[in-house]
Amino acid sequence: MTDLTLTQTPLWRKLAASAEKMALPDYHLSQLLKKKNRFEQYSVSAGRLFYDYSRQRVDEQVMGYLLELAELRGLIKKFRDMMSGAHVNETEKRAALHTAARQFSDTPVYDNGRNVMSEIKAVREKIKSFTEAVHKGDIRGSTGMPFRDIVVVGIGGSYLGTEFIATALEGLADKGVALHFLSNVDIDNFGRIVSRIVAETTLWIVISKSYTTMETIANLNQARAFMTERGLKPEDHLVTVTSKGSPGDDPNNPALATFHMFDYIGGRFSATSAVGGVPLSLYLGWDRFERLLKGAEEMDLHAASAPAPQNGPLTAALIGIWNNNFLRYETQGIVAYASALSRLAPHIQQLYMESNGKAVTLKGLPVDVKTGVIVFGEPGTNAQHSFFQLAHQGRPFPIDFIGVRRPQYDEYTATFKGVTNHQELWANLIAQSQALAMGSSGERPARSFPGNRPSATIVLDDLSPENIGRLLSFYEARTVFEAFVWDINPFDQFGVELGKTMASDIRNEIARKNEDPDYIWDNRDPIRRFYLNQLF
Amino acid sequence: MTDLTLTQTPLWRKLAASAEKMALPDYHLSQLLKKKNRFEQYSVSAGRLFYDYSRQRVDEQVMGYLLELAELRGLIKKFRDMMSGAHVNETEKRAALHTAARQFSDTPVYDNGRNVMSEIKAVREKIKSFTEAVHKGDIRGSTGMPFRDIVVVGIGGSYLGTEFIATALEGLADKGVALHFLSNVDIDNFGRIVSRIVAETTLWIVISKSYTTMETIANLNQARAFMTERGLKPEDHLVTVTSKGSPGDDPNNPALATFHMFDYIGGRFSATSAVGGVPLSLYLGWDRFERLLKGAEEMDLHAASAPAPQNGPLTAALIGIWNNNFLRYETQGIVAYASALSRLAPHIQQLYMESNGKAVTLKGLPVDVKTGVIVFGEPGTNAQHSFFQLAHQGRPFPIDFIGVRRPQYDEYTATFKGVTNHQELWANLIAQSQALAMGSSGERPARSFPGNRPSATIVLDDLSPENIGRLLSFYEARTVFEAFVWDINPFDQFGVELGKTMASDIRNEIARKNEDPDYIWDNRDPIRRFYLNQLF
Repeated sequence: MTDLTLTQTPLWRKLAASAEKMALPDYHLSQLLKKKNRFEQYSVSAGRLFYDYSRQRVDEQVMGYLLELAELRGLIKKFRDMMSGAHVNETEKRAALHTAARQFSDTPVYDNGRNVMSEIKAVREKIKSFTEAVHKGDIRGSTGMPFRDIVVVGIGGSYLGTEFIATALEGLADKGVALHFLSNVDIDNFGRIVSRIVAETTLWIVISKSYTTMETIANLNQARAFMTERGLKPEDHLVTVTSKGSPGDDPNNPALATFHMFDYIGGRFSATSAVGGVPLSLYLGWDRFERLLKGAEEMDLHAASAPAPQNGPLTAALIGIWNNNFLRYETQGIVAYASALSRLAPHIQQLYMESNGKAVTLKGLPVDVKTGVIVFGEPGTNAQHSFFQLAHQGRPFPIDFIGVRRPQYDEYTATFKGVTNHQELWANLIAQSQALAMGSSGERPARSFPGNRPSATIVLDDLSPENIGRLLSFYEARTVFEAFVWDINPFDQFGVELGKTMASDIRNEIARKNEDPDYIWDNRDPIRRFYLNQLF
Repeated sequence: MTDLTLTQTPLWRKLAASAEKMALPDYHLSQLLKKKNRFEQYSVSAGRLFYDYSRQRVDEQVMGYLLELAELRGLIKKFRDMMSGAHVNETEKRAALHTAARQFSDTPVYDNGRNVMSEIKAVREKIKSFTEAVHKGDIRGSTGMPFRDIVVVGIGGSYLGTEFIATALEGLADKGVALHFLSNVDIDNFGRIVSRIVAETTLWIVISKSYTTMETIANLNQARAFMTERGLKPEDHLVTVTSKGSPGDDPNNPALATFHMFDYIGGRFSATSAVGGVPLSLYLGWDRFERLLKGAEEMDLHAASAPAPQNGPLTAALIGIWNNNFLRYETQGIVAYASALSRLAPHIQQLYMESNGKAVTLKGLPVDVKTGVIVFGEPGTNAQHSFFQLAHQGRPFPIDFIGVRRPQYDEYTATFKGVTNHQELWANLIAQSQALAMGSSGERPARSFPGNRPSATIVLDDLSPENIGRLLSFYEARTVFEAFVWDINPFDQFGVELGKTMASDIRNEIARKNEDPDYIWDNRDPIRRFYLNQLF
């Protein structure tokens, strides 16, 4: 890499010039789509995940430059370096080894010179044997009843990935176990969960790397009080997922079991570690969780080895950079035509926005372009009846459509207007991306559609654990590739520190007032005082 | 109003000049917040909903111009005209009378010269008596069992508002009835619901104004097949919410009861009509639904009568216009520090983006500014662990914070670090808006926070039905006020038509192939053919 910043490179300028060209009427998507072989040229099979970007606003010149950009920034090499243990998380002096969590080969993976594969495999084995013992009834609660409710106590990266996967695979959950998520410190989150569970048959999984996450530990405190009040021994209803040596790994804080998580796997990338592994294996069975890991591993290997034009997540990342930095779209919609994928968008929102919402390069210099976009989405066809009015006639934004060839439930086949529900779903999926791209001039202005709205379409064969693993890893790799283009660190999150520090000051103030009702707020900010007074 | 377009008015130019000024360091929020009485000046009590915009990037000059804009566009008068029956939905030649759905006074409200209040009150009475009969067990399913599961079959405006309210008020649901939402045509949505319900105790509420909404009728077909298969009489397990004279109101399609909805209330504004009324009264009891209506009515009257500087939704709308058209923010975050409000953002996303994602004025001319922004959100503190990294250090976007003074569940009061969970929640709410506004320079660039990120804070006393009604009406009025500024029609949605037409063509193709496996696709578009082939 040269000393030029990104925008100073001749390549970046060529891309900027191409973006001006793409604004011309001849480059409207309805024109681009007339080109022969457009679809074959602009679609790629990433293992068993199909990525179609034929309706993105790119042409051969643009794709040529983007592939040069991938080369210039050494994206695939960086990805391989990441997988084998390079300190890609430079600000925190750490490797980023989420891919090791689903590696089944014996290829060594190093963290500071130490091969981590044995500790990772040991955690997997422990999850397998623990969850099997729970399913067999060998491990039970303190009154001898089997576990039927699982409460996952964790927030952010200890929550959203697991929730996405659990929701996606709910149709396979045959262990007689219900899963609940206690993420928010809001006591109403706790109140609603305890109104749905039976204390005696509930297992609480507390997930926090440091075991000091405020929300998680405050919720654990409520859970302990709840169990004690009901005459249960909390240590017989509790497992922890945490770092070695954290307070959650302390024998003085007993638990049924402790599963380790490691510094080299960040929260938002941790769904395939013990963070997702413990709850998902309890919910779905170890075998299905293992199948998920294998799908993710397959996509990791694809991302690390497929040359640029055939590399799915890499291509998607280049399209992301193009849409963001050159076509100036500030948001990215994710619309899965699969209600089982209803929690994909919140997970990717976290993954992408926390990873790539950065302002400085790895060298600590300001990035000279805008980085991450805002990600949002709801399932289709629901989204069509919600925000698609704006998508068609308002401010344009790119969309990832996701289609699944076979539904999870296939026993309901009543037809309406000659098609099944699943076929109706696909008719809409096919129609929307086309309508957004092509547009149409109406007799009246209010019925005109400018078109030229870009989208990609991802196709999965079905909602198998393998495919959910592939989809998860696809978005992880894509996120990381974009960060590599900008030379930012997708693995830190210093942006959340200021709010934490301020919250800590405010908490201390409240705690003093709780102790002494006459305490006068130690702060001259009238706004803060006003809000503090709302609590008393 | 003059013949000048919006951007040609001298006022608009003054606002644009002010926006340039606001970019200067002297106008950074940390500076603006030093002004005396900033908080008193830039906050308003809209009935019992408090709206604080002191951390928006405005000063006296800007607010002065914005209030002039409200005057110039006659916003409050238009709102009153809307409430009394003016044809504000000009493209569809209709009034927009969602406010009449919660009007309790005898003030006449006209639709084409006819006072609608009697038909509206008749629907309310019918909902009240029907739901009370269900709760008493006087109305039961075909095997004589009382109803315990309610499935709401509806999509978009027939779904999201009801889901938001039901989720918000879940803590009050004491009728022994569970509520399920069958919105998506995806058969997996149906499959999951039937795996959770007992057919004999289930009541299906089919909601569609035309009773031709594809998703809804396709799902109704599945439901009929499901009931028949289980030996139940569908007509004894079905109610409809639909227009007079629609197929759902036809005596040849019998149902337990039919509740009318009217052309003058659009889907996304219909949560306080029978659309929300029937399921919510079954779930919460009529009395609580009525309390919700009364809260909404109170906010309607506030919006229609409070003069500009004291008008909450109007002020919020002006801030919205300012952030969008002048400060050029393209998105709006909604972060409620209340897990019960987890479905507020999807509802407002629909309400706002479908209403204001428009490109032409009421006269059919292109709007010369960008209209609606993209709305998204997750509850706090969850969002802090998800997308707030980007909010603090990446691309800035305005946020509506929402705080609730008292939680719904108050029996759990274990403290951690000297504060309750609810206090911890508020410590974070207070901290985040402050951190976003003030920023902080760090020792290292990766730990620097530029600040100057605008936000508003809405405070509710509690999650009572009245307050949920107020919040709902607040956002409805704000949405409509913004549309009035742009002179667009917030009540039509022609933007969804093109996709529907294309989906219909594709459905027909699929239906022909279902009948004749040798059928050759009648379309030369290789992309469409590829996707059609995925289904066979």
